[in-house]
Amino acid sequence: MNVFVLHGPNLNLLGTREPEVYGHVTIEGINAMLTDEARLLGIEIKTFQSNVEGELVSAIQEAASWADVIIINPAAYTHTSIALRDAISAVAVPTIEVHLSNVYAREPFRHHSYIAPVAVGQISGFGSESYRLALHAAARLARP
Amino acid sequence: MNVFVLHGPNLNLLGTREPEVYGHVTIEGINAMLTDEARLLGIEIKTFQSNVEGELVSAIQEAASWADVIIINPAAYTHTSIALRDAISAVAVPTIEVHLSNVYAREPFRHHSYIAPVAVGQISGFGSESYRLALHAAARLARP
Amino acid sequence: MNVFVLHGPNLNLLGTREPEVYGHVTIEGINAMLTDEARLLGIEIKTFQSNVEGELVSAIQEAASWADVIIINPAAYTHTSIALRDAISAVAVPTIEVHLSNVYAREPFRHHSYIAPVAVGQISGFGSESYRLALHAAARLARP
Amino acid sequence: MNVFVLHGPNLNLLGTREPEVYGHVTIEGINAMLTDEARLLGIEIKTFQSNVEGELVSAIQEAASWADVIIINPAAYTHTSIALRDAISAVAVPTIEVHLSNVYAREPFRHHSYIAPVAVGQISGFGSESYRLALHAAARLARP
Amino acid sequence: MNVFVLHGPNLNLLGTREPEVYGHVTIEGINAMLTDEARLLGIEIKTFQSNVEGELVSAIQEAASWADVIIINPAAYTHTSIALRDAISAVAVPTIEVHLSNVYAREPFRHHSYIAPVAVGQISGFGSESYRLALHAAARLARP
Amino acid sequence: MNVFVLHGPNLNLLGTREPEVYGHVTIEGINAMLTDEARLLGIEIKTFQSNVEGELVSAIQEAASWADVIIINPAAYTHTSIALRDAISAVAVPTIEVHLSNVYAREPFRHHSYIAPVAVGQISGFGSESYRLALHAAARLARP
Amino acid sequence: MNVFVLHGPNLNLLGTREPEVYGHVTIEGINAMLTDEARLLGIEIKTFQSNVEGELVSAIQEAASWADVIIINPAAYTHTSIALRDAISAVAVPTIEVHLSNVYAREPFRHHSYIAPVAVGQISGFGSESYRLALHAAARLARP
Amino acid sequence: MNVFVLHGPNLNLLGTREPEVYGHVTIEGINAMLTDEARLLGIEIKTFQSNVEGELVSAIQEAASWADVIIINPAAYTHTSIALRDAISAVAVPTIEVHLSNVYAREPFRHHSYIAPVAVGQISGFGSESYRLALHAAARLARP
Amino acid sequence: MNVFVLHGPNLNLLGTREPEVYGHVTIEGINAMLTDEARLLGIEIKTFQSNVEGELVSAIQEAASWADVIIINPAAYTHTSIALRDAISAVAVPTIEVHLSNVYAREPFRHHSYIAPVAVGQISGFGSESYRLALHAAARLARP
Amino acid sequence: MNVFVLHGPNLNLLGTREPEVYGHVTIEGINAMLTDEARLLGIEIKTFQSNVEGELVSAIQEAASWADVIIINPAAYTHTSIALRDAISAVAVPTIEVHLSNVYAREPFRHHSYIAPVAVGQISGFGSESYRLALHAAARLARP
Amino acid sequence: MNVFVLHGPNLNLLGTREPEVYGHVTIEGINAMLTDEARLLGIEIKTFQSNVEGELVSAIQEAASWADVIIINPAAYTHTSIALRDAISAVAVPTIEVHLSNVYAREPFRHHSYIAPVAVGQISGFGSESYRLALHAAARLARP
Amino acid sequence: MNVFVLHGPNLNLLGTREPEVYGHVTIEGINAMLTDEARLLGIEIKTFQSNVEGELVSAIQEAASWADVIIINPAAYTHTSIALRDAISAVAVPTIEVHLSNVYAREPFRHHSYIAPVAVGQISGFGSESYRLALHAAARLARP
Repeated sequence: MNVFVLHGPNLNLLGTREPEVYGHVTIEGINAMLTDEARLLGIEIKTFQSNVEGELVSAIQEAASWADVIIINPAAYTHTSIALRDAISAVAVPTIEVHLSNVYAREPFRHHSYIAPVAVGQISGFGSESYRLALHAAARLARP
Repeated sequence: MNVFVLHGPNLNLLGTREPEVYGHVTIEGINAMLTDEARLLGIEIKTFQSNVEGELVSAIQEAASWADVIIINPAAYTHTSIALRDAISAVAVPTIEVHLSNVYAREPFRHHSYIAPVAVGQISGFGSESYRLALHAAARLARP
Repeated sequence: MNVFVLHGPNLNLLGTREPEVYGHVTIEGINAMLTDEARLLGIEIKTFQSNVEGELVSAIQEAASWADVIIINPAAYTHTSIALRDAISAVAVPTIEVHLSNVYAREPFRHHSYIAPVAVGQISGFGSESYRLALHAAARLARP
Repeated sequence: MNVFVLHGPNLNLLGTREPEVYGHVTIEGINAMLTDEARLLGIEIKTFQSNVEGELVSAIQEAASWADVIIINPAAYTHTSIALRDAISAVAVPTIEVHLSNVYAREPFRHHSYIAPVAVGQISGFGSESYRLALHAAARLARP
Repeated sequence: MNVFVLHGPNLNLLGTREPEVYGHVTIEGINAMLTDEARLLGIEIKTFQSNVEGELVSAIQEAASWADVIIINPAAYTHTSIALRDAISAVAVPTIEVHLSNVYAREPFRHHSYIAPVAVGQISGFGSESYRLALHAAARLARP
Repeated sequence: MNVFVLHGPNLNLLGTREPEVYGHVTIEGINAMLTDEARLLGIEIKTFQSNVEGELVSAIQEAASWADVIIINPAAYTHTSIALRDAISAVAVPTIEVHLSNVYAREPFRHHSYIAPVAVGQISGFGSESYRLALHAAARLARP
Repeated sequence: MNVFVLHGPNLNLLGTREPEVYGHVTIEGINAMLTDEARLLGIEIKTFQSNVEGELVSAIQEAASWADVIIINPAAYTHTSIALRDAISAVAVPTIEVHLSNVYAREPFRHHSYIAPVAVGQISGFGSESYRLALHAAARLARP
Repeated sequence: MNVFVLHGPNLNLLGTREPEVYGHVTIEGINAMLTDEARLLGIEIKTFQSNVEGELVSAIQEAASWADVIIINPAAYTHTSIALRDAISAVAVPTIEVHLSNVYAREPFRHHSYIAPVAVGQISGFGSESYRLALHAAARLARP
Repeated sequence: MNVFVLHGPNLNLLGTREPEVYGHVTIEGINAMLTDEARLLGIEIKTFQSNVEGELVSAIQEAASWADVIIINPAAYTHTSIALRDAISAVAVPTIEVHLSNVYAREPFRHHSYIAPVAVGQISGFGSESYRLALHAAARLARP
Repeated sequence: MNVFVLHGPNLNLLGTREPEVYGHVTIEGINAMLTDEARLLGIEIKTFQSNVEGELVSAIQEAASWADVIIINPAAYTHTSIALRDAISAVAVPTIEVHLSNVYAREPFRHHSYIAPVAVGQISGFGSESYRLALHAAARLARP
Repeated sequence: MNVFVLHGPNLNLLGTREPEVYGHVTIEGINAMLTDEARLLGIEIKTFQSNVEGELVSAIQEAASWADVIIINPAAYTHTSIALRDAISAVAVPTIEVHLSNVYAREPFRHHSYIAPVAVGQISGFGSESYRLALHAAARLARP
Repeated sequence: MNVFVLHGPNLNLLGTREPEVYGHVTIEGINAMLTDEARLLGIEIKTFQSNVEGELVSAIQEAASWADVIIINPAAYTHTSIALRDAISAVAVPTIEVHLSNVYAREPFRHHSYIAPVAVGQISGFGSESYRLALHAAARLARP
């Protein structure tokens, strides 16, 4: 089973900025944790981060040929990108939306997600644990 | 560690009605699965279902004295109950909101949750697996 | 043919309060009239009133095993109860929504019904006659 | 007792188009059924159909001198015609609004009726049976 | 003179939870204070608390036969319960709405009250003192 | 100077229905009054009433060749007819909008006028006197 | 018959600023024209202009003892002043609202008037002629 | 192949009014151009213009028996006519919506079309060329 | 203890206008009643009324140096004055908002208060009794 | 004559994904068809596709020096990109907006276009034929 | 060059109240700083503060005869005063809007400015420095 | 002191397109002017322009290590980019938002800024002078 993990804009700053908000875990730390966990679950994972909406779109398109599940933290693009939504719809790979923080406890414009209606499900609010839970959910999607 | 699992209105019908939508798993099946999983994680769980908003409020209030985490599927009351929200705020027990289906792919009035802003996090869309993921998330909340 | 007639909150006050608005007919009077009319139509009817949203939900759930049609006057819960709507959807018993008064000639918040989209049809504005017309409509639903 | 039955725009197509949606009953069929039913109830009925909003307005005006009750299916004009509403208000003949389909289960713009607040009541969702129920309701309006 | 004091959902937690927000006064303390104050004013009071919307509705209905004034803190149901509003309208007992906190300094969804338009008046923001002021207002209502 | 006076839907009922609201003046009375007043002002007037939106549109189009000013009481079409608005814009004859009643003291949907932005001005609330004032305003438009 | 003519904020600039928009007529010119016209109609008029909302409120209050009709051009306060509205309601002197320009052809925030619902009628769009028409309307109000 | 070309309200004024906006082409000119073009494409066309919404509805109904494609410029009725929409849905003839001007560069109320969701496609902004392009699109619809 | 009582626009008309709505109590009567009541409570009071928003702002500013509590009935400025709100915030004197009538039973634009979020609490609907209750509440604010 | 054809995000997937929705035509197929058609019309065309909003902006900027007309299918950026709109406005090259599907029959957020108001016109709903019609429209733009 | 500096309501409290929010600079301090800075720039300045909307309107009107630029901090009236906006439009003196704080980081009702659309530009968020920057901007306006 | 100046999408066209709107100053001209001005103020500046949202995000991230102040003209991304907002929040470098034109005098969708709430302040409407004022404001930020 192959899982593609996408990190959206500004997530490359994780752990180095605003640690009081986002904790001290870096994106490399999350990727390493996921790689370890994936090995236990017999899953191959590939990760990607970009600040550019269109590069995330292209990455999703390319994943269509090999990924069984996509795990995406669309960050700011959650709320503004119809292009990401269309890419997920088009490739038809089951996609899980994750968020580090509880977006519903933040500004109103973060309560709406263009991604959610085309995702399988959504996990938010558990910090880097959100990703791990998503990986476990992905493992189950392959064995219904 | 003690976890209280609450099921909101109409969830007692699970598995017996609309299996093509909600699958064949019954609420007893979910509770049994959670009890097994909890034993593996060294967690004590207690479960409760009610169709009455105020009984769910009272159940949350009573859990304040013994539960370390609440897992709640508020079902229809997700979208209409400020009383449930206030109960969760008042007892200050970390609470995880779960949904069987992807509420964002359903009617617009299901996109707003009164519970989400006072919950720790939210897991939706994975069927009964949403509950299991929530139990794992709960286990982590106790060991930060 | 079995018909379940549900009366929502405050309908137990009918005839004893605000007769200038709702007339002098009591809920017992309506039930008696419906029982007579049902006998003529060869219909078995059962009636129930509650002020508690969750009890109405449970009553609908229980009717699933014996009722061919549900006639419901959801009163105030028409406008606020997604739980009632979900119960009606779940049991899949054809349901007719009735109102004594013309809700569209009252406050704007009474113009929206959560029940209407999952009901077969809606009859409003004819006082206790609304119920009788609903019973006749129910009789027809069984013989299309 | 005299009853005027008005059919709004496109209802002349009934039964000949989209039978899977509206059934095989034609407007002539409905009128014949109503004529029969009216005879049993001792009611005189007159029917009229037009696609032109202003002709429906004029028809209502003319009915003021002889009709005891108006039954109207305003179809598309339900949602757009203040002129029809004003005509009904002006002639002060008790008016019953009927719809073949459950308008609340259709597009949002069909959920609002300019007619409902000035009608006595509303019956919707029972196909041609909606008209028959309206005729019975009309019969009762004359004998309170 | 008889006054009925109703406490809505979660108010049974007063003083035991979130004392930094709601103070150390318990609901029993408020009831005792009101009983003392009532004695001075020559008023009989009866108190009731419930987390169940329908039980509050029933309590209001029963008070119709003996209460001269109702004092209600509808708490969360302020913003969601049309059933409570209808009960107050139906029994036609003058009703005073009270709130411990200043609801207008809280979340926007707490700014709207279904109860206010059918109440005589509203007192909010003075903690348990809101109830005492309401009792004095009630005393005046009886002697215009 | 030539003035075209248009009366919209239901205005043919003036004086014969709802005299307590609209007074006892008939449309013939208004036309006669305007004819007299016009003679004094040296104005030729022509009047027209229709319940059909499209006939009012056509009437405006035809007036383009001879009318110096149009006085229109669009009645219900004020709030719904973009076609009337477009006709007035297209013929470029200065147009004065009149209303018998104060539309701003009525239902909210009567507060918006599609005609007002393309009219020269608006006179409302003075009963049949609104028309007379409009005629005087028309007389002035020709002599700036 | 006594008529009080009020001019709202910035109307003292009339004729001296933006003549291409408002013409060359000054407020003194309008007052003089109205005085002449009033003499012909046997009306006493008094005029007042202020840029201060509260002074206009006080002026209306004082007029209550002597004015039979108020003609007011509330200018910018049309859209923002509930205090002016309340003053007009309180003194119960029939009030006519006038505007020089067609406010419906300007910015959307100028389309709403707090004054209109409590005025007898409204005349807008005819420049200084709006005032003269209002004076004639006032004359008629006294002789119904 | 048979194509029915409908022109909505005020389009009969084309070329004779506001040439600076709509150009000097008349509706007769457009019809002639379309007839020529249709001959080249082996298409039979019939054209119709009306200012009356209901006549356009009837025209669409009648076209159901012979037209393969409808080309409609609904003009003002684009934004207000649910009756036209229902007629197009009912007859189930593929329909192309055209506009002379770019409606999205005009007033906001022209940005919404009731017709668009039931049309095959939409062509707007190219003047009379919009019609010619629609004719070519129609030709292709018949040969997919 | 010093209390400053402010009366907003039009309140100087109390008792002399619309007695059927506001009763026969004048503002002088209210001030006298408050002065008597204050003496019993050992409170010094000063009162002020103005129709001018800015004068009320200035009065609040000046009260900052001597008042312990402000009681304000902002009347129409409740709904429109951010300047009053800012003055109350700036002087940081605890402020109680009062209304004679139940503003929530009046027009929708009276349901929003700019003052409420910066006030300690709000008392409305008890006529002149609202002021007396506010004075008692003020007395308590000083002795928590 | 030079025409620049831009394809927005995800259009590179055409024909390879969701053929049941978008058909089997690939973007290369569309470009080839357009090249052929352009040759017949004596037009030079250049095509470009990108998933990156900013690259589409840059492409439009560069086209300013050589393109006579731009044909753009902005896909998802239609609804979210003010940057594309500004680029089109800035370069002042006549631009035609095309869509493969009828966007008005899809989700509501696809009904609004930031591009439409600055485009010459819009063609949508005809599949790849939308592009061909746009090319013909472009040809006409150069020969008015 | 003459510059008129206007300070709106509550700005006279600057430095004496809420220093933690607005700093210790008083309005006299700002005026002195501006006078010094103006001397360096060869500018004459005059300053004015009022809590009364109408006095600010009058001050702007009077400045029309001598001021080359107006610098205004409308404070609370920014969001509510159409009268100030109209005054600025009428006098046609270039006007710069300044704010001490970043209004966009405060309550939503402070995000809308009636003044901004008629001002030359806007400077906000730099404390008293906002005024100094505005003075420099004013100096440039005179020398384009 | 180091200042980073960012120019958003389409600003590279400055001076070469639409000079009647944006003037003849090019982006190179602005950068040169700022460099000169910076030298006088003892500031180091670095400039960057991109049409790609994600590149602007990355540029802000990289500036975190060396810039003391960021001056950004986000152009079209002002209104659509939450990613830019998040980048500014994350790097916690004081940021000043500038605009060449007065965005509040343009289309409504340009009135909302995602950047403003996380910026220190905002300067708009002074053409290239907006940048110079921002540089002076930046200089002050470093010396409070």
